[in-house]
Amino acid sequence: MSGNEMWGGRFAAGPSEVMEKINASIGFDKKLFRQDIAGSRAHSAMLAARGIISEADRDAIHDGLNSIEKEIEEGRFEFKVALEDIHMNVEARLRDLIGEPGARLHTGRSRNDQVITDMRLWLRDEIDGLDKGLEALQIALIDKAEAHADVLMPGYTHLQSAQPVTFGHHLLAYAEMTGRDRGRLADCRKRLNECTLGAAALAGTSFDIDRSMTAELLGFDRPTENSMDSVASRDFIMEFLATATICSVHLSRLAEEIVIWMTDRFGFIELSDAFTTGSSIMPQKKNPDAAELVRAKPGRILGAFTGMALVVKGLPMTFNKDMQEDKEPLFDAVEAIALSVAAMAGMVTDMEPRPERMRAALEAGFPTATDLADWLVRVLGLPFRDAHHVTGRLVKMAEDKGCDLADLSLEEMQTVEARITDDIFSVLTPEASVASRTSFGGTAPENVRAAAARARQRFLG
Amino acid sequence: MSGNEMWGGRFAAGPSEVMEKINASIGFDKKLFRQDIAGSRAHSAMLAARGIISEADRDAIHDGLNSIEKEIEEGRFEFKVALEDIHMNVEARLRDLIGEPGARLHTGRSRNDQVITDMRLWLRDEIDGLDKGLEALQIALIDKAEAHADVLMPGYTHLQSAQPVTFGHHLLAYAEMTGRDRGRLADCRKRLNECTLGAAALAGTSFDIDRSMTAELLGFDRPTENSMDSVASRDFIMEFLATATICSVHLSRLAEEIVIWMTDRFGFIELSDAFTTGSSIMPQKKNPDAAELVRAKPGRILGAFTGMALVVKGLPMTFNKDMQEDKEPLFDAVEAIALSVAAMAGMVTDMEPRPERMRAALEAGFPTATDLADWLVRVLGLPFRDAHHVTGRLVKMAEDKGCDLADLSLEEMQTVEARITDDIFSVLTPEASVASRTSFGGTAPENVRAAAARARQRFLG
Amino acid sequence: MSGNEMWGGRFAAGPSEVMEKINASIGFDKKLFRQDIAGSRAHSAMLAARGIISEADRDAIHDGLNSIEKEIEEGRFEFKVALEDIHMNVEARLRDLIGEPGARLHTGRSRNDQVITDMRLWLRDEIDGLDKGLEALQIALIDKAEAHADVLMPGYTHLQSAQPVTFGHHLLAYAEMTGRDRGRLADCRKRLNECTLGAAALAGTSFDIDRSMTAELLGFDRPTENSMDSVASRDFIMEFLATATICSVHLSRLAEEIVIWMTDRFGFIELSDAFTTGSSIMPQKKNPDAAELVRAKPGRILGAFTGMALVVKGLPMTFNKDMQEDKEPLFDAVEAIALSVAAMAGMVTDMEPRPERMRAALEAGFPTATDLADWLVRVLGLPFRDAHHVTGRLVKMAEDKGCDLADLSLEEMQTVEARITDDIFSVLTPEASVASRTSFGGTAPENVRAAAARARQRFLG
Amino acid sequence: MSGNEMWGGRFAAGPSEVMEKINASIGFDKKLFRQDIAGSRAHSAMLAARGIISEADRDAIHDGLNSIEKEIEEGRFEFKVALEDIHMNVEARLRDLIGEPGARLHTGRSRNDQVITDMRLWLRDEIDGLDKGLEALQIALIDKAEAHADVLMPGYTHLQSAQPVTFGHHLLAYAEMTGRDRGRLADCRKRLNECTLGAAALAGTSFDIDRSMTAELLGFDRPTENSMDSVASRDFIMEFLATATICSVHLSRLAEEIVIWMTDRFGFIELSDAFTTGSSIMPQKKNPDAAELVRAKPGRILGAFTGMALVVKGLPMTFNKDMQEDKEPLFDAVEAIALSVAAMAGMVTDMEPRPERMRAALEAGFPTATDLADWLVRVLGLPFRDAHHVTGRLVKMAEDKGCDLADLSLEEMQTVEARITDDIFSVLTPEASVASRTSFGGTAPENVRAAAARARQRFLG
Repeated sequence: MSGNEMWGGRFAAGPSEVMEKINASIGFDKKLFRQDIAGSRAHSAMLAARGIISEADRDAIHDGLNSIEKEIEEGRFEFKVALEDIHMNVEARLRDLIGEPGARLHTGRSRNDQVITDMRLWLRDEIDGLDKGLEALQIALIDKAEAHADVLMPGYTHLQSAQPVTFGHHLLAYAEMTGRDRGRLADCRKRLNECTLGAAALAGTSFDIDRSMTAELLGFDRPTENSMDSVASRDFIMEFLATATICSVHLSRLAEEIVIWMTDRFGFIELSDAFTTGSSIMPQKKNPDAAELVRAKPGRILGAFTGMALVVKGLPMTFNKDMQEDKEPLFDAVEAIALSVAAMAGMVTDMEPRPERMRAALEAGFPTATDLADWLVRVLGLPFRDAHHVTGRLVKMAEDKGCDLADLSLEEMQTVEARITDDIFSVLTPEASVASRTSFGGTAPENVRAAAARARQRFLG
Repeated sequence: MSGNEMWGGRFAAGPSEVMEKINASIGFDKKLFRQDIAGSRAHSAMLAARGIISEADRDAIHDGLNSIEKEIEEGRFEFKVALEDIHMNVEARLRDLIGEPGARLHTGRSRNDQVITDMRLWLRDEIDGLDKGLEALQIALIDKAEAHADVLMPGYTHLQSAQPVTFGHHLLAYAEMTGRDRGRLADCRKRLNECTLGAAALAGTSFDIDRSMTAELLGFDRPTENSMDSVASRDFIMEFLATATICSVHLSRLAEEIVIWMTDRFGFIELSDAFTTGSSIMPQKKNPDAAELVRAKPGRILGAFTGMALVVKGLPMTFNKDMQEDKEPLFDAVEAIALSVAAMAGMVTDMEPRPERMRAALEAGFPTATDLADWLVRVLGLPFRDAHHVTGRLVKMAEDKGCDLADLSLEEMQTVEARITDDIFSVLTPEASVASRTSFGGTAPENVRAAAARARQRFLG
Repeated sequence: MSGNEMWGGRFAAGPSEVMEKINASIGFDKKLFRQDIAGSRAHSAMLAARGIISEADRDAIHDGLNSIEKEIEEGRFEFKVALEDIHMNVEARLRDLIGEPGARLHTGRSRNDQVITDMRLWLRDEIDGLDKGLEALQIALIDKAEAHADVLMPGYTHLQSAQPVTFGHHLLAYAEMTGRDRGRLADCRKRLNECTLGAAALAGTSFDIDRSMTAELLGFDRPTENSMDSVASRDFIMEFLATATICSVHLSRLAEEIVIWMTDRFGFIELSDAFTTGSSIMPQKKNPDAAELVRAKPGRILGAFTGMALVVKGLPMTFNKDMQEDKEPLFDAVEAIALSVAAMAGMVTDMEPRPERMRAALEAGFPTATDLADWLVRVLGLPFRDAHHVTGRLVKMAEDKGCDLADLSLEEMQTVEARITDDIFSVLTPEASVASRTSFGGTAPENVRAAAARARQRFLG
Repeated sequence: MSGNEMWGGRFAAGPSEVMEKINASIGFDKKLFRQDIAGSRAHSAMLAARGIISEADRDAIHDGLNSIEKEIEEGRFEFKVALEDIHMNVEARLRDLIGEPGARLHTGRSRNDQVITDMRLWLRDEIDGLDKGLEALQIALIDKAEAHADVLMPGYTHLQSAQPVTFGHHLLAYAEMTGRDRGRLADCRKRLNECTLGAAALAGTSFDIDRSMTAELLGFDRPTENSMDSVASRDFIMEFLATATICSVHLSRLAEEIVIWMTDRFGFIELSDAFTTGSSIMPQKKNPDAAELVRAKPGRILGAFTGMALVVKGLPMTFNKDMQEDKEPLFDAVEAIALSVAAMAGMVTDMEPRPERMRAALEAGFPTATDLADWLVRVLGLPFRDAHHVTGRLVKMAEDKGCDLADLSLEEMQTVEARITDDIFSVLTPEASVASRTSFGGTAPENVRAAAARARQRFLG
């Protein structure tokens, strides 16, 4: 069968087939079965508490829902496309199982408020899981940073060696980013944790329901305030996707560094076979596939956010079928960010620095030139801009001689600035440079250890 | 099992499980099995023709590949995640089936050039199918336009009634957009129709292969020029995704119009049950779900393009694992655009205009005011800007009287511009307005019929 | 001069011209002059407090900075492209004005930490302004909602009339969305309100600076924790852009509704000339241009977010020149969201509903069918699914007779369900329907008034 | 003035100020003055040719337009915001200058068809210029490739050394990408090169105009076919933006390579000061700023495409004010891609490879392992998969000994595969490897030279 025939088939399909393909959501929203059943359980408990259904009906409904949940978990449930979505599939089966009480369940609610409740419950769980994953990543980063608080490496700007830093300090930068990512997730969770049940189709209901009770039963902080907003809004999904995009962009940066550090030209770290793939022909090759995939994942997550913004843009109140497009990209993005976080936590734990390669890279590029300038300011009282100038001349001298700054003799230095003393050699090694950066947030090893301890407290409580 | 536990599981997974989850592509690239087998068939035919493998080996390979294709088509093939991708799954099975000759197949090629060949073959087929779908949509548009070349409706700017047009003319605007979409697809197809087989890993090969022969066997126009470019580039995917985005944006506009035309306030068209869904409670309700979904689909297609651009941005030569992220979004986007086109073709065929509702809408908003101004220019020789001014005063007069322009008496009109004659009434009806727009591309019914005939020739050859 | 010549010129430019064009940022970052000067003021105050510079130098620096600020404000400052950016322009001028003390200012800092401090200060101010703008929009929405808490209109799903709601309720949905938008802005502000000064180039500094003092002087909550993260991260910009995107998408929905409500087919509201434009030829035309532009603005804001994510993706530590691309899109997005909010606040204040047009629209589409079903459940005890069925038959009966549900006689209704009583007519009018929706968050006018009062308290404190 | 005050001002602005700010386009569309005047010249020439205006009027109009063009070019024209856009500014001035004939110019056209003509003319010129720029880049790439067709360097996959290639071959990969970019541009130009003049407001006109004449005068291939499509469509802008995005993504890849090649760890190339910036303190530092900015530019270009897709999505026919948002992002994107191309052409011309650094990098990573395996296949007739296995063992042996493959003795090799002969050493050097890759598109120096010659012919013809 050629491509054309496949397509011909697609286009030759009768209208009803096209409609079914584009319309039904059960293929993907069955993922929400647990949340859908939990919502129905809470809703029916509330209906009984308010006397809208009987306690016997409630019990029958609960028994039926329990059975259905088990059927689905055990793979015995038959999902029907004709029933369109998870809500109708569950409800229809409930009626099969328990008869009339099943028909009373949908009182005072609608699929419009139900689906949003499901989505919020599902995403809340995923956020909690993701937060755990990010915490694990932070633990890995902080542990590794502490273990290598003294390991020197070049700090880069423009991928040019700029000033010496420690490997621990470098890793803690990512612990900070991850901390803000968790903060954004927590804010997102808080904002979405309101219950839409009872908004009904769009206008609320005339049944004397208790929305606070349903909210509480499902672990929500409160019911939503406006029924139309409840069924029409998807900003909680957009906020999550933006948060996940930013987080994945952070991870992509560390991933890029891992790729660079793993080239033979750098060779700054080693990664075990667990996170690399070999080549069938070049056994020495350790392709950092996991890092490359983490670097690429922001693509689909950003794509999901972009797509969602386009979908919702310009939609009038309240529910429009367009919104059904919220699910698949969200599910995909959640999977992508979760895998990225897990893979990165694994890689950070797994990676081992090669201090000798890092230290060797500090021999090039005069990374302590700033220290020399600072010495001139601090000890000789030169204005900083003048100190720059002197430093420039000394670097030029070293460059011409093909040596390091520390290899210049005192006499040579004094030809440029007569007041320079022996003391200057105390700041010209990478070790001294790093040790001197004790300002808050700086890279001195003692700072890094203190920062790691503080990070442990701030993030891992 | 709570969400946390699910997640805990995900994050508690050993590194190898995380790696497997993020690394293996067989879960989605098995979609390419036909293309992969076709590529191997052509490659082995060429190897034999050049004496690199024997004819007997080639025959054994072909037999084996045929068996494998059948196994997959019949659902009897066991895909193995440990073998990572479709290429290794097929090759391993081939070796199982035919032994040593199977081990000779991979001579002078690599998975890097193989996967790109597969993708180009697959996308080429999909483009051909999509073009057929768009042609079907154009047929529907042109047929419907011809059938309703005389049906008057308000032409809108800013969703405000502006000038009368015909329903046929309105539909032909979409035939034009669709025509350009097909043009973009054709350009994209042409550009991607080159064969990468023989680029090998990245540098070409030392075997004396015949790339023109493989290209020809697979229906490509020629082999690609540069081996590094061949395995590193994905612009053909980006170009397709951009093209599909633009096409889906066009469809979203007609979809929006269908949604608006279907509200009871407009009521300009009817759609059958085939493309609407009812509500279990409001039987009169015809929710235009298919149109809403078509309106939403640009989201995921744009998302795929955006994501792909982000993935490839800043990647050094040549193949990087990041590129594995090209497949799922492309597959998803192809499905989305195909469904959108099919659904729209169905809706256009299905929809029936309600001419009386359209005509009634022309009673409001003085849509022939431009015609009045044009008459003043044409007959009285007023400069256009002055004619505007006179028209403005006449419209104000009609507005004050609560009547149409055509309901003003000649005497009343002459109080504004004394030279106006009876002839002016000949341009004040929507029918006259539309009939007069005979400039090339204008909305006069005769024009619309001619344009439809021309469109049939230009697009449907 | 033809396009080619213009271009030819561009491409014929010597390398230095191309470099200058692509490299210099003074053309746009001069917008940050106030923030840059404020930062320098705080930095020098701290240097003096720590004895790193003298108090006399500090005073000279402050005087010089004050003069420069005045020069810029009064348009007398000469910005030089050769000095690349706002930081160097200000510092060079300072040295011109005050000599050596000016050369001491740059001690213990670098442009890398300086620019990020400027950006945070600037964005913090803009967020405060935007929050004020959103508050003004909420005031407009709540005021208007309260004034029209009783005005009935169709509530739509799929742009099909679904259930009656009140205009006030509809508007309050947007007050909720805007409230969440403000919440996201507040979270973003909190997270960015940390001071990067003292991170220096990337590694901290060996000068004994007091980062808490600078932070406090500039109104920041605290200094940032990690020097590398400080100069390398841009997530505060991405978070703002995502927040602005979501907010603008919310506004685009109300904008779309305004466009629809302003068509003559709907005619649900009136907007004054202040927010519409006429046509030179059709004086009755009120094009809702402002609403259309608000509907379109998410485009460039989303574009800024998308672009920023792409720019930062895969960048290694720490500063890379790529990050200079953060400014123009951010400036543009801030302007776009600010204008959108201001225009929408203006339109909401300006718009007047046309209750008779809204009420007339409730005659179509049986919008009280749900009320009928609910009555059957509540009064007769029918299971909801059965009630649906009965309702469906009654709607069909009314449809066949071409009348409303309320126009069916009791006898006619009883042919479908014998137990129906006269009481049913009490729920069949839109007025009764709306009045009955008293569940929390529902559309009953008393609810809407209470919700408006609550919104005033929750949002306007 | 604090930020709040600025904002307060913005929000305190009366409605008319907000409206003016959001509505007027003259601030940016004045860029189109040449095109607008050219369009008016052609339109009036046609009106005169058809007898709709007199020849005297036409001459007066042409004289007036010439004066206005000069005024604008010389900076003497006063643009008025109250006149909204470039069309009205020009037309109003024309009437000032020449009186009544100026008022006849707008006969049979509207701003809706006029603005689209302007945009197409403008973009057509820019495409032509951009094509010239890309041609210049191709010349630079091909020249450089030819000059360094023999320079060996590691070819990378996953940034891991994979197989030797030549620097010339590497550069030609980009000549291919650029060639496809030019192809896309040419297709885009062809598709947009139709004239919309005469579509008028949306429905065509009743004046007996000659659209073919205007089209021809302005260098268009033909008039557009459908008046509604003409004023409502913006796909030519989206197509250009997508094309520019793809092109900029290609450039970002070479930019990333330049950044990597410029690190001291690689040191594969040198760039002069023209395209790098120094640091005031580290004179040896050559920050590749231009490359980093080219790497970042896809951000705003993709942002423009994304934004445009969002703007147009779901817009009903025909013109909506939303479309005014097409200009600024397009102008910005054109500037960005033009600068990127110019900067990259400059860098390619400027860069000099450091062959000794590249060659040294080939000592690591056994990049000729594939050659060894191919020899086993070709000479000993081993199936490729078996040859892989043997190679793997030999590489392991060399790795254990800490030597290259070529440093193993024949005897050592024969312990793994007894049939290996002396001939094997002929394929183990990078030089031999590269020389052997003579398959079409392969990296052998003779191939590279031939490919460069062919590229010159294909692209620069």
